[in-house]
Amino acid sequence: MTPANVLEVNAERLWAALDRAGEIGRFRGTGVRRLALTQADKEVRDLFVAWVREAGCTVEVDPVGNIFARRPGTDNSLPAVAIGSHLDTQICGGKYDGALGVLCGLEVVRSLNDRGIATRRAIELIMWTNEEGARFSPPLMGSLAFAGKLSSAQVHDSKDDAGLRFGDELERIGYLGKAPLGSRRLDCYLELHIEQAPQLDREGCDIGIVVGGYKTLALRIDIAGETGHSGGTPMLERRNALVGAGYLIAAVNDIGLAFAAQEGRTTTPRIECFPNLPGIVPEQVRLIVDFRHPEPAGFERMHTEITAAIAAVEAKARVIITVAEGWSWGTSLFDPQCIELLKDTASDLGLPFREMLSQAGHDAYAVADLVPTAMIFTPCRNGISHNTNEDIELTRTLPGANLLLNAALRRANR
Amino acid sequence: MTPANVLEVNAERLWAALDRAGEIGRFRGTGVRRLALTQADKEVRDLFVAWVREAGCTVEVDPVGNIFARRPGTDNSLPAVAIGSHLDTQICGGKYDGALGVLCGLEVVRSLNDRGIATRRAIELIMWTNEEGARFSPPLMGSLAFAGKLSSAQVHDSKDDAGLRFGDELERIGYLGKAPLGSRRLDCYLELHIEQAPQLDREGCDIGIVVGGYKTLALRIDIAGETGHSGGTPMLERRNALVGAGYLIAAVNDIGLAFAAQEGRTTTPRIECFPNLPGIVPEQVRLIVDFRHPEPAGFERMHTEITAAIAAVEAKARVIITVAEGWSWGTSLFDPQCIELLKDTASDLGLPFREMLSQAGHDAYAVADLVPTAMIFTPCRNGISHNTNEDIELTRTLPGANLLLNAALRRANR
Repeated sequence: MTPANVLEVNAERLWAALDRAGEIGRFRGTGVRRLALTQADKEVRDLFVAWVREAGCTVEVDPVGNIFARRPGTDNSLPAVAIGSHLDTQICGGKYDGALGVLCGLEVVRSLNDRGIATRRAIELIMWTNEEGARFSPPLMGSLAFAGKLSSAQVHDSKDDAGLRFGDELERIGYLGKAPLGSRRLDCYLELHIEQAPQLDREGCDIGIVVGGYKTLALRIDIAGETGHSGGTPMLERRNALVGAGYLIAAVNDIGLAFAAQEGRTTTPRIECFPNLPGIVPEQVRLIVDFRHPEPAGFERMHTEITAAIAAVEAKARVIITVAEGWSWGTSLFDPQCIELLKDTASDLGLPFREMLSQAGHDAYAVADLVPTAMIFTPCRNGISHNTNEDIELTRTLPGANLLLNAALRRANR
Repeated sequence: MTPANVLEVNAERLWAALDRAGEIGRFRGTGVRRLALTQADKEVRDLFVAWVREAGCTVEVDPVGNIFARRPGTDNSLPAVAIGSHLDTQICGGKYDGALGVLCGLEVVRSLNDRGIATRRAIELIMWTNEEGARFSPPLMGSLAFAGKLSSAQVHDSKDDAGLRFGDELERIGYLGKAPLGSRRLDCYLELHIEQAPQLDREGCDIGIVVGGYKTLALRIDIAGETGHSGGTPMLERRNALVGAGYLIAAVNDIGLAFAAQEGRTTTPRIECFPNLPGIVPEQVRLIVDFRHPEPAGFERMHTEITAAIAAVEAKARVIITVAEGWSWGTSLFDPQCIELLKDTASDLGLPFREMLSQAGHDAYAVADLVPTAMIFTPCRNGISHNTNEDIELTRTLPGANLLLNAALRRANR
């Protein structure tokens, strides 16, 4: 690759697009609250569609609201090279989680347009619906539906905490599309995302090429006890579901701490308690517990310890605990050829990178089941995300954006 | 007292009234869900008002919905003898918690009517609004407002979890009354209630004369942490509010267990967590913690241990915990003369009783600040209450009901 072949994105335009999108749903300073299918989501979708149309793309929307913006190639009989991410955020989210990947994808299209470069294969820029799962469950909803793991009906019937139906809300914001779900022929899928962990930032490295994921499992845990009067029920006769939950949350965190040196993680992100009223011993608690480890053997040790902790809590709190497995993903996710493409392109561009594992779930995980997939990580300050203080530096983001541009171009001319 | 002076309630009529009232809001078998100001509450109030009118009482309602049914005396210039309790229940409540006291009061009026007995002082039967606090906070709402501890405005502005205002709901069910709040002249207040603890049931004693309460304090605890990604945030860098809550719930329960032999109690009946969503380390948790001990010195030791546990949790989970005191009550609640009246009457009737402490809060606690007050406890099976399996035996309830009848008569003729 000669210098003449090295394309670069327009840094100012990328930054301006991030700022413009970050105004929509702005929350607590520079944070963003842009939950799926809210007015803010509609607004950022409208902006995205206007931008891609202006960039010459055709736009299709599928029945779960995924948006596909297509920049035609010279041979449109070939499967397209896809680039994507999401524009929804967590409830206390940041400007870059998801949006950076979508807007770097937009920068790929715009940069090719700037130079009048035609590609052999089309390039498709994809905005996935409801990656975060902050309003409708599960997370990765749009990409899972695309990958055939959820039906349109399942997605449409999902309800938020106010009882509003996904399908109705999608129609309300005007993104109930007709493009058949999951039928697109794609050559590959590339996603750029902030790392959401502090490794790149601390090592001063600007590009992570994701070779796999932390092995991860979410458990849905039901704890059954018995109501009683919080004054009159003797301590030793209680079957207190919330006490069971307290012991379990503590034990699960202690297991995470014990595995922290190996980069193990445990979290109880959600608790629901019933009746949850003054004066009553709680009878029912539901928890989500997730745990992750970079290596399958370490993951299994954590799983064994969590299972033992659940049994110990059952005995100690005199409650009955049932466990169902929720979402999970493994360590080998991505396509070796696509990973090679990213590594070769980075080397050719002279861009330092490191191989790494993803600690978070991404739309790319779902898509990888159908389409050869790979991911690029860029640094975020202190690894902070799912927090309104999420932050990035433009200069440390551009290497990843330029890698995305050049790798996509290479693959599209294949 | 000669046998001719010993009055007895009509056992069948009392049981039938309990059954009839227990149909309203029936829930999970023989349980009852009759939350304050719901349609079920309206229905049971309408039934109560019909019954007391039929029994010749006049009815007044105050601005917080407390109902005062008055059986006139021969000298209506004298303060009345009051008897009362509540008809609302917990969300998974029983047939007898509250209703037994109100319907034994009705039985007092009916039994006096049966025999054509006129009393010197009037007898007022009081139904207090929202004793349980299961829908609107705080508990003891009607009696606290009566005692001047809450204003009408404070009560009216209280909202349920759906955002519905107490004042609007009270008006909707037709019980926004005009009788001035708290202005009634009462000679004394007597309340009969199921024990809600297993002491009477296990000892085979049918009457508890309440000489005081377990010293009790409720704490409102806010735990502040920081959101973060549940995958990418290293364990040691987290400030996880729900982990703080888990450690604290566990520690508070362990303290309760350590004091169990002395009849100490600790409960965390309520938890609220934010954002409470998959994938996010929680940033904010609110807990209610209550603890009780029969002796002030033991209570203080528990308080010291809970305070130390809070400090330890702050350090371990790297969170900030703030504590506000909620409701509380002490050990000396009731009027010595009224207690003597109950003891003397029981002795004269030949009814075995034991003196005891109340472990639960009651409307009588609020009223006792204004009016000489005492309470009678009757057994409930295994002490179970705030549970749909709450149960009583008629034969073990009648001694308490007869004590109430005869003590009220004695006091009303004073």
